[in-house]
Amino acid sequence: MTLILSNDDVSKLLTMPECIECLEDAYRELGAGRGVSRTRSDSITPTTREDGLYSLKSMDGVIPKLGVSAVRINSDIITWPKIGNTMRRVKSPAAPGGRYVGLVLLFSTATGEPLAIMPDGVMQRIRVGATNGLGVKYMARADASSIGILGSGWQAGTQLSAACHVRKITRIRCFSPSKTNREKFCLEMTAELGIEVTPVDSAEAAIAQADVVMCATNTVDAVFFEPWLEPGMHLTSIKRPEVDEKAVAACDRVAIHTQDSKPILTATRDLDIPEYGEERGWGLAAGLDFNTLPTLPQLIAGEISGRASPEEKTCFLNNLGLGYQFAAAGAVVYRRAKELGFGHDLPTDWFTEDVHP
Amino acid sequence: MTLILSNDDVSKLLTMPECIECLEDAYRELGAGRGVSRTRSDSITPTTREDGLYSLKSMDGVIPKLGVSAVRINSDIITWPKIGNTMRRVKSPAAPGGRYVGLVLLFSTATGEPLAIMPDGVMQRIRVGATNGLGVKYMARADASSIGILGSGWQAGTQLSAACHVRKITRIRCFSPSKTNREKFCLEMTAELGIEVTPVDSAEAAIAQADVVMCATNTVDAVFFEPWLEPGMHLTSIKRPEVDEKAVAACDRVAIHTQDSKPILTATRDLDIPEYGEERGWGLAAGLDFNTLPTLPQLIAGEISGRASPEEKTCFLNNLGLGYQFAAAGAVVYRRAKELGFGHDLPTDWFTEDVHP
Repeated sequence: MTLILSNDDVSKLLTMPECIECLEDAYRELGAGRGVSRTRSDSITPTTREDGLYSLKSMDGVIPKLGVSAVRINSDIITWPKIGNTMRRVKSPAAPGGRYVGLVLLFSTATGEPLAIMPDGVMQRIRVGATNGLGVKYMARADASSIGILGSGWQAGTQLSAACHVRKITRIRCFSPSKTNREKFCLEMTAELGIEVTPVDSAEAAIAQADVVMCATNTVDAVFFEPWLEPGMHLTSIKRPEVDEKAVAACDRVAIHTQDSKPILTATRDLDIPEYGEERGWGLAAGLDFNTLPTLPQLIAGEISGRASPEEKTCFLNNLGLGYQFAAAGAVVYRRAKELGFGHDLPTDWFTEDVHP
Repeated sequence: MTLILSNDDVSKLLTMPECIECLEDAYRELGAGRGVSRTRSDSITPTTREDGLYSLKSMDGVIPKLGVSAVRINSDIITWPKIGNTMRRVKSPAAPGGRYVGLVLLFSTATGEPLAIMPDGVMQRIRVGATNGLGVKYMARADASSIGILGSGWQAGTQLSAACHVRKITRIRCFSPSKTNREKFCLEMTAELGIEVTPVDSAEAAIAQADVVMCATNTVDAVFFEPWLEPGMHLTSIKRPEVDEKAVAACDRVAIHTQDSKPILTATRDLDIPEYGEERGWGLAAGLDFNTLPTLPQLIAGEISGRASPEEKTCFLNNLGLGYQFAAAGAVVYRRAKELGFGHDLPTDWFTEDVHP
């Protein structure tokens, strides 16, 4: 049978500690050349609405040790509204019922068969959090106890829970432009983490004397700047443009998620795509070369050290997501779903064939 | 609802003339920069059996005019046995019930929603046939009436039916190494096409005085050679290695399917992959540059001419399949399936989400 799982299933089946553990092992495989990660590709075209574009995004990964491969697909209507002073990239939930379209298809490397199909949303947050959590584990000071977080949206929560899993955190301050949003977020996260999460009314107040600074926004303009760096600080970001490149260049050590430096973009002729314009040259002026920066798999393999002294300023950039992460997390979800009887069973014959393809 | 369709459904919903017509229009869109084709990527790793490898293949395409995008995925166990004198690439039907795994996912470019999921096998054959049929349409002599075909396997039939749709064909001869296979194939195709298809016992006998020579094998060694070329002949191939590169170079005009010259290969470290070794340097020694050869979309757009005189020797190489073709054919299948009530309806909510991905 092929399992159809929901986000609700995934949220019950994949915990943050398990996701951190499975990713850590999967990166070790990847670093040793025993796994395969296929760089994300984005296909961009017009859609029916004038103020948006259609985006088909896909990324693949294979982990023979876990016996799985995954394809993650996003089929999105994207808009770029200006909110406050910053332009944001906003996915429009345009599918029936006001919904988004992101899927993970999990296959067996032993038989080729489709094991499971599930939405990517919950897994996406957990794996982004887990990845930056691994950055904290390998680069932040061992005694780091305070976090300043910029952003209170859909990625911020898992950033905090991952960091709290790898360090003994006792103080968290949060800033985001909307007072209502950040206060709501702080209440929720205080309850979830059992650690006081305090809303503050400026970025500077959030990051002052923080051992770990986490940027977790969907901005395409910078929200963290060089003068805010302090000795011993670990800075982490879920997307390049949110940290000013001068701040990154001023750190003593910088590591990135993967040297797949950018998605492979294919678009219809003469299309104006705001985000790509922003990202394309990012880091160049500051001398940051995404083809040579050390990566998370290298940190995990011990090929490079994440920190040499308590005073060093370190930075981890989660520069690009990988289908490989969905293979790792998907393997955990699938195994637990089978054990616990989650999901809809569909005949595997619906997704296989007797005709040679 | 999201439609789950079978190969049986596809074979009833997609005819060769319709597939040729939809592809011709789709290539016109692509040539004009109004469509997007994302180059195929292959991720190759070990599998559980020693004599095979696991291959995850994906390719994407978007056609705004038709309102659809497609991702085609193949999750295969591949072996390379030596059969007779030639090495063949053989997919092993390793999924439960002895089945293959190839899927086409069709999405809406207006809403992003998943419209349909279907196996790729029947569509795969029809679109390969239709593509080479378009090559015949734009490059073979207008009065071409005879075909010599090499191969009697799963791709050969649609090659013939496509060619017979675009030219008035009255004589077909077929050679393949197995007498039993070629005789069975000729009986079947004679019945299907209403044209006598004659089995012959050598490649030379099949192609002598043929106006159109079609190679439709799964060999990784050449089956057609330069001395066999005749004035006015149109030569067509479904994969590069089956035609000796000297034969291609000796043609007056050569066109290819797409300038995406090869799939993007990612493999685990130190993996020995027979086929890629064979294909990598193909054509170089004969001065064939896949980055500059004219393409089918250019032929269709009229940017280049497929033939200047009845005496010219022409060649069309279907060098690489595109997800784009599955978007075009998938759009036809989906529209007709909705009209005629084919397939299993599943709740679209199973494949969409209220969580931001």
